[in-house]
Amino acid sequence: MSMDFQYYVPVRIVSGSDCVKKQKELLCAFGQRALIVTGKSSVRNGALEDVAYALNANGQKFAVFDRVPNNPTVESVEEGARLAKEFCADFIVAVGGGSPMDAAKAVAMRAKQSIPEGIFAHPIGGDVLPMVHIPTTAGTGSEVTQYSILTNDEKQTKTSISSPALFPKIAFLDGKYMADLPQDITVNTAIDAISHAVEGMLSVRAGALTDALAKESLRAIFSEYRALSTGNYTIHSRQNLLYGATVAGMVIANTGTSPVHGMGYSLTYFHKIPHGRANGLLLPSFLRICRKKIPERMQEICEAIGSDLEEFSQRIGFLLGERERYPDEALRDYAHRASMNKNIKNCRAFFDENDLYEVFKDALGK
Amino acid sequence: MSMDFQYYVPVRIVSGSDCVKKQKELLCAFGQRALIVTGKSSVRNGALEDVAYALNANGQKFAVFDRVPNNPTVESVEEGARLAKEFCADFIVAVGGGSPMDAAKAVAMRAKQSIPEGIFAHPIGGDVLPMVHIPTTAGTGSEVTQYSILTNDEKQTKTSISSPALFPKIAFLDGKYMADLPQDITVNTAIDAISHAVEGMLSVRAGALTDALAKESLRAIFSEYRALSTGNYTIHSRQNLLYGATVAGMVIANTGTSPVHGMGYSLTYFHKIPHGRANGLLLPSFLRICRKKIPERMQEICEAIGSDLEEFSQRIGFLLGERERYPDEALRDYAHRASMNKNIKNCRAFFDENDLYEVFKDALGK
Repeated sequence: MSMDFQYYVPVRIVSGSDCVKKQKELLCAFGQRALIVTGKSSVRNGALEDVAYALNANGQKFAVFDRVPNNPTVESVEEGARLAKEFCADFIVAVGGGSPMDAAKAVAMRAKQSIPEGIFAHPIGGDVLPMVHIPTTAGTGSEVTQYSILTNDEKQTKTSISSPALFPKIAFLDGKYMADLPQDITVNTAIDAISHAVEGMLSVRAGALTDALAKESLRAIFSEYRALSTGNYTIHSRQNLLYGATVAGMVIANTGTSPVHGMGYSLTYFHKIPHGRANGLLLPSFLRICRKKIPERMQEICEAIGSDLEEFSQRIGFLLGERERYPDEALRDYAHRASMNKNIKNCRAFFDENDLYEVFKDALGK
Repeated sequence: MSMDFQYYVPVRIVSGSDCVKKQKELLCAFGQRALIVTGKSSVRNGALEDVAYALNANGQKFAVFDRVPNNPTVESVEEGARLAKEFCADFIVAVGGGSPMDAAKAVAMRAKQSIPEGIFAHPIGGDVLPMVHIPTTAGTGSEVTQYSILTNDEKQTKTSISSPALFPKIAFLDGKYMADLPQDITVNTAIDAISHAVEGMLSVRAGALTDALAKESLRAIFSEYRALSTGNYTIHSRQNLLYGATVAGMVIANTGTSPVHGMGYSLTYFHKIPHGRANGLLLPSFLRICRKKIPERMQEICEAIGSDLEEFSQRIGFLLGERERYPDEALRDYAHRASMNKNIKNCRAFFDENDLYEVFKDALGK
């Protein structure tokens, strides 16, 4: 457990049933006019109604931008930023899963900054609209990170932009917004959070504090394994899964992710495999190679998971169901792409292109 | 474990050997001129040299205010604030134990705000000099809290002022500054941190995240019990104790403290008993009454401590050595004073004046 670390998560976390309505006064600090950034599907879970109630009760004006697609594009960010400027928004309220929450960060930045070099090349300054994030899935952790992950068509992958200025000011955590979340999304997002916690422990930037948070996240999520595997959730399960996902977000805000994320982006970009599922398909195979390269650290991770690697692999496999298979040629291409991702350098175990191919083949080979 | 909670610690934690020198660039964000706020005893532990090295290397100017007394007075705060204004300080660097770190927060505030109603009555605005805190004891947690605890001569106690504006921007954690810390101060401050973690779990504001952090703090500190009881510390022990104390600070930043702190202030004000020792003298007796009032929560706390209450009591008692004894009349007076402290309402178990007297009598009766 390393004592050489940095840790920074300047987000106010407000958790609990009806927290948006109960703590609505917290929104008053950010100004008179809010742009709500959301996706089409977030309209039906009750979150948008709660936000509207809170803003109305505070006498704040708002507009809604609900055209964020899954795996958000630069075009949708630009459209949101234009609307934020037209509406003279003082702050952004992001409502949704990872896509709307990530897009909202880029919208908040683009509403204040011009980027002549393009969004992926331009350094991000400190001037962004303040943001309030309300997750409606339990996985991404975006509500407590400084990352915004956008589709990068030029490079045919997803690329993260990152800056301390992109931390939301507040994350409201209310599990009730997940009450009707479909089982596949629930499972995929929970696996995403598990992957964040495990990848955080594999990071060269892992320290005592992120280790403690990663273990807490895994404890909370695996305490709901029965719910995840049966699809029967109580409101308490939902809140617990959301809590675990947020705590895993606090981990990766400080550790970053591992090559698993870099590898998964190809599956999402080329095959539309949901992000969490992509991580879950790859993680057990990745960890098997880690066990050879860094056995002591893997022992600690298994203790945090509460099972050995084969049991972990079976549990994740059960949640994923039948797995996709791809031809060898494609897997070699994805391994090559992943070998160029900056996540490679972030892992305590070094994975060269051949190692990455071995992971792909073990996980997804025909 | 409650899921209804708020959590906010917007401090960048930078941990590890030589972190001030290695991460000196982080100081550049705060301006050209620093006032270092410290106590006389902090001069000899190497922290001041590291700060001076870092500021010089950055081309930043600095002045030193080293007249913060133990249990800082309002007068010393005013003197520091005058110096900060005369020097046109852009930011404050606090170096020392709880007293200099707490005083530095009030100095940072007073350098920017006037307080016609007096420091304990005046609401604290957002305009304060940015602060960087460097603890040289492992106990207070002040480096990650929004509290400044000052001697209140009018009310004959210590009184905390509190505001989100009083969070330091950075906490540098380097255990080497504690290498030559005397055994009594090491023990007293470690007990202070233990008390913070336990009191945090007793708070009505305790939530899942602060519980996890409290347990992590107790794990780290009790893993050094052997070092604490023998007085033989490695640099790793020192870093571990400092880490535990900071994590306990992250707890109380969100939960506040319990009546134990309110009770201890009388022992410190009237008998100059060091703050951590005062808490340690009272805590086991306090927890015995909690065991009757909130048995389930006490069970969780005992699991976090890793022992039952009597073993905990013996371990703390061993560290404290011979305990002070006071006449019944004095203890009744202290119980009365403690019953008026706002900490009373912050505890899951309600302690009336008679309960508080029972604690005092059990702990310190003749």
